[in-house]
Amino acid sequence: MSETTEDNIQVLFKSAPDGLPTEDNFEIKHTPIPSIGEGQFLLRNLYLSLDPYQRMLMGGGWTYSGGDLKPGDLMVGRVLGEVIESKNPDYPLGTYCVGRLGWQTHAVSDGSNLDFTVPRDSKIPLSAYMGAAGSTGVTAWVGLKITGQMKPSDTVLISAAAGAVGSAAGQIAKANGCKVIGIAGGPAKCKIVTDVFGFDACVDYKAPDLTGQIKAAAPDGIDLYFDNVGGDVLSAALANMNKGGRIPLCGVLAAYNAEGEPPTVANMGKIFDKSLRIEGFVQTQYKDRWDEARAELIDLIQSGKLAYRETIADGIDAAPSAFIGMLQGANVGKQLVQLA
Amino acid sequence: MSETTEDNIQVLFKSAPDGLPTEDNFEIKHTPIPSIGEGQFLLRNLYLSLDPYQRMLMGGGWTYSGGDLKPGDLMVGRVLGEVIESKNPDYPLGTYCVGRLGWQTHAVSDGSNLDFTVPRDSKIPLSAYMGAAGSTGVTAWVGLKITGQMKPSDTVLISAAAGAVGSAAGQIAKANGCKVIGIAGGPAKCKIVTDVFGFDACVDYKAPDLTGQIKAAAPDGIDLYFDNVGGDVLSAALANMNKGGRIPLCGVLAAYNAEGEPPTVANMGKIFDKSLRIEGFVQTQYKDRWDEARAELIDLIQSGKLAYRETIADGIDAAPSAFIGMLQGANVGKQLVQLA
Repeated sequence: MSETTEDNIQVLFKSAPDGLPTEDNFEIKHTPIPSIGEGQFLLRNLYLSLDPYQRMLMGGGWTYSGGDLKPGDLMVGRVLGEVIESKNPDYPLGTYCVGRLGWQTHAVSDGSNLDFTVPRDSKIPLSAYMGAAGSTGVTAWVGLKITGQMKPSDTVLISAAAGAVGSAAGQIAKANGCKVIGIAGGPAKCKIVTDVFGFDACVDYKAPDLTGQIKAAAPDGIDLYFDNVGGDVLSAALANMNKGGRIPLCGVLAAYNAEGEPPTVANMGKIFDKSLRIEGFVQTQYKDRWDEARAELIDLIQSGKLAYRETIADGIDAAPSAFIGMLQGANVGKQLVQLA
Repeated sequence: MSETTEDNIQVLFKSAPDGLPTEDNFEIKHTPIPSIGEGQFLLRNLYLSLDPYQRMLMGGGWTYSGGDLKPGDLMVGRVLGEVIESKNPDYPLGTYCVGRLGWQTHAVSDGSNLDFTVPRDSKIPLSAYMGAAGSTGVTAWVGLKITGQMKPSDTVLISAAAGAVGSAAGQIAKANGCKVIGIAGGPAKCKIVTDVFGFDACVDYKAPDLTGQIKAAAPDGIDLYFDNVGGDVLSAALANMNKGGRIPLCGVLAAYNAEGEPPTVANMGKIFDKSLRIEGFVQTQYKDRWDEARAELIDLIQSGKLAYRETIADGIDAAPSAFIGMLQGANVGKQLVQLA
């Protein structure tokens, strides 16, 4: 096979960053393309998904988990790959698969470590399965529909609304009949949130009085706050919640790169006063609902109701710098790396 | 009737306190005993229950609700009264009733505004229906069993553990098979928590390193944290929560009397990292479960598994000072006022 003349190029975890990572925290390594055994198949990876949770796995600074990666480990991440060699009849050549196979150009699988296979007759772009029709969209769907118990009458507030998960969440909520308010940083991002993603309004967390801005945009209060950031933005949202409100907590961007004292949250008494529910979730808790979620997401994308943006870096060598940029908000929409 | 020679003595709300209330925020008023119409009955109130939520209703300082009471309003509170005059066959003379009828020595009812009637053959003290067999015990039961989804395998952490709700919660959790850790202020209160209320351990929030103290008492982590206080204690609990942990939020003592900046909470990222659920609740959300809860509480009291303490002030005139004392932690257990 011609592939054996290539290398498998990997990005390894080298050391824990103190705050924002630098390229020194990663190591690029060339290894031979692995050979496959019975029941296995070889994937040439096309896209790598970069996500904030990967920063958490690196540890250091003020991360919650303490870092799951050890020096020399392959960086964790979801990829979309094409089967280019197969000894498994369920995965013939040309099959597109998505799974958490790491930051590398090739991967071996027997199918057990995959998330899903792309439908053969798919009419949406392949890269969408890394984002709006993949873990990004499913995360938004799970947060709204399962953890957030979304109802059509809800007024929904969404932070990091110009981001991949936030923009998907807003459009899913709109498609389900909700009034949707976004929170984003700066007038340009706010304009994208309303004009491209169709939110009813968007408030600017970099402008003064976020609490008052939210109140002006949602005078009847917030029923569901889809939180991607925590910290001061969560405090401002809490001040505006209606009785019985739900706050699915999808992430804590405010904390990932914090050096020194971690961010704190005010207005926590509202949880008692308004009988609120705050609940952290990850989509992997609800694998039994993934097919249902993805079917709805594919429908929304095909019918033009779920727009998404991508920032695509070129080549595996660019993964660390693209990752660092994403953590600083340099990307628009889903941050991917094109691998082949 | 001889009662008409008495007055109905009421405590009215006069003004919003700035932080801790003073007696100037209340007004004592004598009014005639009200007469009753068809279907009504007159109660002579025996006990008044003083509770932190009443501070919230007074507004001012940093309260969440902004204060529901207007100057001249009767202070809100639960009383236990005896029917002393009746034009309602369902409530004959001598019936003991509990309801939110306010800080006053007498009250008229038609039954619609009552919480429950004390069973005629009750073998536990009447005052228990104001506490461990009343709203206090039901609050603990609801927080553990409904909001907290308590399981026998849980390690349960409880703040304000020497208080009325906290001590009841700990004993209910013990009776359900849980390992129970209390948090209280000072060695004397901690000793009561373990020796009188039978908690497995109690840590002192006034001593250094609360987070480490909790970790030492519960090295395998906390599954359910019954939070009565919020603020720094909640931050320390969050640092010790296990994956999928539940935090029913029963109150925010830390905030009721805060002047200036409200307390903030750290370690909020644990909610995402550990898929935690924090949920505020009030027992009035679950009226359909009250009978079930009270039956279990009466059983536990009769069988000696639910001990409780009371601090009983004497006479309606003493209600404001007893209330102020309670907000400062001067009481042991349930704070009542004996009215007759």
